[in-house]
Amino acid sequence: MLEKLKQEVCEANLDLVHHGLVILTWGNVSAIDRETNLVVIKPSGVSYDNMTAEDMVVVDLEGNVVEGTLRPSSDTPTHLVIYKSFPEVGAVVHTHSTYATAWAQACLPIPNLGTTHSDTFHCDIPCTTNMTAEQITRAYEAETGTVIADAFKDMEPMHTPAVLVAHHGPFTWGKSAKEAVQNSVILEQVARMASITLALNPKVEMDKNMIEKHYDRKHGANAYYGQIKK
Amino acid sequence: MLEKLKQEVCEANLDLVHHGLVILTWGNVSAIDRETNLVVIKPSGVSYDNMTAEDMVVVDLEGNVVEGTLRPSSDTPTHLVIYKSFPEVGAVVHTHSTYATAWAQACLPIPNLGTTHSDTFHCDIPCTTNMTAEQITRAYEAETGTVIADAFKDMEPMHTPAVLVAHHGPFTWGKSAKEAVQNSVILEQVARMASITLALNPKVEMDKNMIEKHYDRKHGANAYYGQIKK
Amino acid sequence: MLEKLKQEVCEANLDLVHHGLVILTWGNVSAIDRETNLVVIKPSGVSYDNMTAEDMVVVDLEGNVVEGTLRPSSDTPTHLVIYKSFPEVGAVVHTHSTYATAWAQACLPIPNLGTTHSDTFHCDIPCTTNMTAEQITRAYEAETGTVIADAFKDMEPMHTPAVLVAHHGPFTWGKSAKEAVQNSVILEQVARMASITLALNPKVEMDKNMIEKHYDRKHGANAYYGQIKK
Amino acid sequence: MLEKLKQEVCEANLDLVHHGLVILTWGNVSAIDRETNLVVIKPSGVSYDNMTAEDMVVVDLEGNVVEGTLRPSSDTPTHLVIYKSFPEVGAVVHTHSTYATAWAQACLPIPNLGTTHSDTFHCDIPCTTNMTAEQITRAYEAETGTVIADAFKDMEPMHTPAVLVAHHGPFTWGKSAKEAVQNSVILEQVARMASITLALNPKVEMDKNMIEKHYDRKHGANAYYGQIKK
Repeated sequence: MLEKLKQEVCEANLDLVHHGLVILTWGNVSAIDRETNLVVIKPSGVSYDNMTAEDMVVVDLEGNVVEGTLRPSSDTPTHLVIYKSFPEVGAVVHTHSTYATAWAQACLPIPNLGTTHSDTFHCDIPCTTNMTAEQITRAYEAETGTVIADAFKDMEPMHTPAVLVAHHGPFTWGKSAKEAVQNSVILEQVARMASITLALNPKVEMDKNMIEKHYDRKHGANAYYGQIKK
Repeated sequence: MLEKLKQEVCEANLDLVHHGLVILTWGNVSAIDRETNLVVIKPSGVSYDNMTAEDMVVVDLEGNVVEGTLRPSSDTPTHLVIYKSFPEVGAVVHTHSTYATAWAQACLPIPNLGTTHSDTFHCDIPCTTNMTAEQITRAYEAETGTVIADAFKDMEPMHTPAVLVAHHGPFTWGKSAKEAVQNSVILEQVARMASITLALNPKVEMDKNMIEKHYDRKHGANAYYGQIKK
Repeated sequence: MLEKLKQEVCEANLDLVHHGLVILTWGNVSAIDRETNLVVIKPSGVSYDNMTAEDMVVVDLEGNVVEGTLRPSSDTPTHLVIYKSFPEVGAVVHTHSTYATAWAQACLPIPNLGTTHSDTFHCDIPCTTNMTAEQITRAYEAETGTVIADAFKDMEPMHTPAVLVAHHGPFTWGKSAKEAVQNSVILEQVARMASITLALNPKVEMDKNMIEKHYDRKHGANAYYGQIKK
Repeated sequence: MLEKLKQEVCEANLDLVHHGLVILTWGNVSAIDRETNLVVIKPSGVSYDNMTAEDMVVVDLEGNVVEGTLRPSSDTPTHLVIYKSFPEVGAVVHTHSTYATAWAQACLPIPNLGTTHSDTFHCDIPCTTNMTAEQITRAYEAETGTVIADAFKDMEPMHTPAVLVAHHGPFTWGKSAKEAVQNSVILEQVARMASITLALNPKVEMDKNMIEKHYDRKHGANAYYGQIKK
């Protein structure tokens, strides 16, 4: 069942290690098959060392395990809310990468300060509100998804495919597991550069025209970055 | 004698190198056999390059060498006080890892600013008081253990298995050598994230409900992180 | 056509990865053959993993592709303006290396604070002006070259072979692709040291005599650093 | 001639690369044979990639090349002044390691803030005065040695075997090339920790009793760190 997707999700999880975004058993990647609405996700608290595609768990959009002998990631309900809220998302990544997590702990959005940011993320990376005591008690992981969806009420999730959960850490997404992981790599780099930039010049702001130009040349109707896709 | 424990302690010492927590001959790991009250510890000032389980030294709780041809770590008396003060501790790790040591040098506790911290450490990581001139002269290493024990007068050492010794560096512990090393890895990551977080937002504080939630989902009576232990 | 230069440019692009100056498909190196005025440059948005000399694209100084099946880097017009403005330049490198990019995002020149800087760069590394809305709309990449050339109106580009494009990132150059890459390595190191230095002592300034001495002993008429070139 | 010393100096130079203290052709190690007063030193501006013991240059204390086909390091006169000023020194290391160089550029001594520092360096790491215009013009590299010797007028060079040359970078020394390199490794770590510590708590100071205790337990008459030397 979904063997190709399991392979992609497994490789994407291992790529988190290779890119230095996770240590120990931290982090998780999932991907959805939009035809069957089934989600493939990393098992909870399992070592990356011997992880194989067979270890991946298949769940439905209500979180019921459809296939797999291991328990799915404890963050599964968060992933599922993201899939239900953002219909174009094909894969979700969660890490505790150092700089993005520090921004999340600081409860601050990452400002768009340069073309490295604009090339991938159109707007500032939003930071969610803090959850209420009631939300935390009721259904913590699902409510984590709710505050993420709320943060994009007036934003296009596919144009800024990343969010910081306050006092927790980053989630990114993309059309594929590979793209979602790549967005996590870029987010960490952008978070690091922004912290160094603001230490050098706390008042700097970026020109809106340059933001639009860089986002457009990669993602706009007349994009001209990269090779022409045939 | 205690061959299995020697092997575990040796591997744990080498893991400090692999995780980038120690350089040169710095750092040391010990573990206790609670049935015989014998402690296996790294020898003092010996290179990690060719270290084998046979080099580990066995001492009793008074610090007498019971087996081994090398001298035990000069920090042995500190380890022994920790074993005597905290009866559930099975292993102790000492490093001079960069960020945790910087917090210790700053004489500041590491505040709990996010779920990365709460997942492993329930409270802020305490920093000991400075030792008195008398303590330093009398029995420096044993008194280092005393100020550690004092720091946990009103705290549960197994819920926050780490401490900073003022102007010195971190000690962590756990049920096994492997767990104690893992706690050192997480402590260093938490220390690094906290320093970046406070540079971005010096006034940030974390919500107590979220701290409880994250600690509980991994360590509480109804913990649901990871696979079910059979 | 230009097989040797293609090989050099390909290797220089791969060196950016080895030196940790680029991730993913970021960054680009080009080199010019001054006899034919043909420029060899990295293709746009292509993975470094299997890149070969054959993938390099040959363009003329007006940006027309003369040889190659892939599209040249989207930054090609910037490289071409640099070759046209600075006749001694043999190769150009563009990266988004972390610290140099942070300085560019902060819109600040990198001050010359020590001999590490002076050994390679005579003056502060200039930061360009922000582009006007008109420049961004008209011919963004070529205008990026224009603001670079403007930044050197009163400076000698071969004595300070690096620039920061405001809110974007660094460009460096040299007589050869190898030298231009080396200048990117040094620029990143100098940028990192300067940010740490100013955090320690925001008011420090370097003595002009020492700047002249270090630059001269490596690049002056009586240079005595290194082996005598025969 | 001095084959064993050449081998040691060559290996020590390569160790600078392995420890991440130098890039490109930066840095140099020398060692002296106190019986013949001959100094073995790295050649100037030569790549580390294929460096062999045969490439090392032998000079006398006046800087005359006694053996070797390559030119000695341009910093040779600085090394020679250190050997002439500090008779117990057996080897000298110069690097541009990141954090130590940043402190040198900030023209600040590295304060002794913890036992990591005290275990190796008794006092704060001194920073030299800025050289006068006359010193720079007359004999720059030899005068660099002079300001180093001046910085130790009231200090014991073997108890604090490191110095920062203002706006330049660190020099360390030791009885052997291996020890001098090790001191450079520790200096860089100490410099990094001190910069993080002061960012967390700018006013912190260390207790003098603890400094004495840690230095003594490793270097005092009754030292008890490490194995007993037979």
